[in-house]
Amino acid sequence: MTKSKPAILVVNDDGITAPGIKYLMDAMKDIGRVVVVAPDSPQSGMGHAITVGKPLRFDKVDIYPDIEMYSCSGTPVDCVKLAVNKVFKGKKPDLCVSGINHGLNNSINILYSGTMSAAVEGAIESIPSIGFSLDDYTLQADFSHCIRFVKEIAGQVLQNGLPAGTLLNVNFPAGPHIKGIKISRQANAKWAEEFDERMDPYKRPYYWLTGVFQSNDGGEDTDVWALEHRYASVVPVQFDMTAHHAIPLLNSWTFNV
Amino acid sequence: MTKSKPAILVVNDDGITAPGIKYLMDAMKDIGRVVVVAPDSPQSGMGHAITVGKPLRFDKVDIYPDIEMYSCSGTPVDCVKLAVNKVFKGKKPDLCVSGINHGLNNSINILYSGTMSAAVEGAIESIPSIGFSLDDYTLQADFSHCIRFVKEIAGQVLQNGLPAGTLLNVNFPAGPHIKGIKISRQANAKWAEEFDERMDPYKRPYYWLTGVFQSNDGGEDTDVWALEHRYASVVPVQFDMTAHHAIPLLNSWTFNV
Repeated sequence: MTKSKPAILVVNDDGITAPGIKYLMDAMKDIGRVVVVAPDSPQSGMGHAITVGKPLRFDKVDIYPDIEMYSCSGTPVDCVKLAVNKVFKGKKPDLCVSGINHGLNNSINILYSGTMSAAVEGAIESIPSIGFSLDDYTLQADFSHCIRFVKEIAGQVLQNGLPAGTLLNVNFPAGPHIKGIKISRQANAKWAEEFDERMDPYKRPYYWLTGVFQSNDGGEDTDVWALEHRYASVVPVQFDMTAHHAIPLLNSWTFNV
Repeated sequence: MTKSKPAILVVNDDGITAPGIKYLMDAMKDIGRVVVVAPDSPQSGMGHAITVGKPLRFDKVDIYPDIEMYSCSGTPVDCVKLAVNKVFKGKKPDLCVSGINHGLNNSINILYSGTMSAAVEGAIESIPSIGFSLDDYTLQADFSHCIRFVKEIAGQVLQNGLPAGTLLNVNFPAGPHIKGIKISRQANAKWAEEFDERMDPYKRPYYWLTGVFQSNDGGEDTDVWALEHRYASVVPVQFDMTAHHAIPLLNSWTFNV
């Protein structure tokens, strides 16, 4: 008796022609039936944005042979919603993988990341979901050293599932010699922004967002620590953002309304 | 001895001319020195998006008398980053309030909401932060019944502070007769999407995202329950998205890499 191959939805935020998604779909082809739904243009930094004020384009495309692919004019989260509704038509895929992102999505970057927000949306749809990111922001990034980890982690999630309401955020150090996997927590860190002010030809100022990533977290159980020590970090993520520990404190306040 | 008035940053996602932000800045004028930094156009559904692929416009504007106001071409989160870096120049405001949003941001909507993401960004910057939203999506929404709650909650946060890494998500039922405040948790719910397919004049399809909000959560301690029973819901929120409870489980997995 043969079991049918698992259905695997592949998404990203760098766009359907980014090298990172090619590595991911090739890795997933070995373990399942792959369907790609990805943005038609780069969507880095789009976080959990959805397209509400304008309509979406959504087209079947033929970029790589033997892979069912769709491009979408919207955000990574739009891609997941379109995949669930228009491609899988309610019959959920067995796995949703997002990436491999050109650049880290560790720590607080999960909030800004289209890659991770697509995986979060997969989890909201009760699909076991994983986001993958590499510490190399270039289009020429070499993802080859990640692939055995990607396949192993995806295989384990297909086999074991994930607790309800959770997904995985996986980040890789650049280059070969990845020491192994560290299950981690999101480091307490932030970006210290700088805005690069320039003048346009009409003498009006404009600003480029730049910044420096600053970790304020000395813990050895964080994703920042794991990556600095050349481990792949795996952070279990939840989309319940309630600060449950703060509920008793707030209940002790007296509101005069 | 007089204490100087607290500095209050007011942001939103419906845009600098939306009625909701006018109500909020008027309420805050009574308790502090108000600075408004808001998007120059509606940014609903932008989640935690930031502008990385193009530059930003950022201009001092003179819409309402006696209020220091800036408009920004970017997202709600961009507004907070610009406020911290270009307006307050590192000397953080005492409070960041976002809204009042035209429409609910309860439950899972916190992830899609520009209003709430601006408040989350405030909290990342260690500013006590609150997002306010009303269950009325129209531009003609009547925010007057919320104002005494808005002032009371903002006053309490200014007085007591909030635990590190947390912020508040406040939602109001529409209309008068708000029974009181319920400290709540984020309900377990999701949107069941439908895409409204149409044909453009050139015979190419396009899609409008629509959907139905579905709560799968029978709890009486949720924001959905509180709003249905005509309470203002106050959910303490954290931006650490780690599913800490899932770490032991993942550590029990054996990865063959």
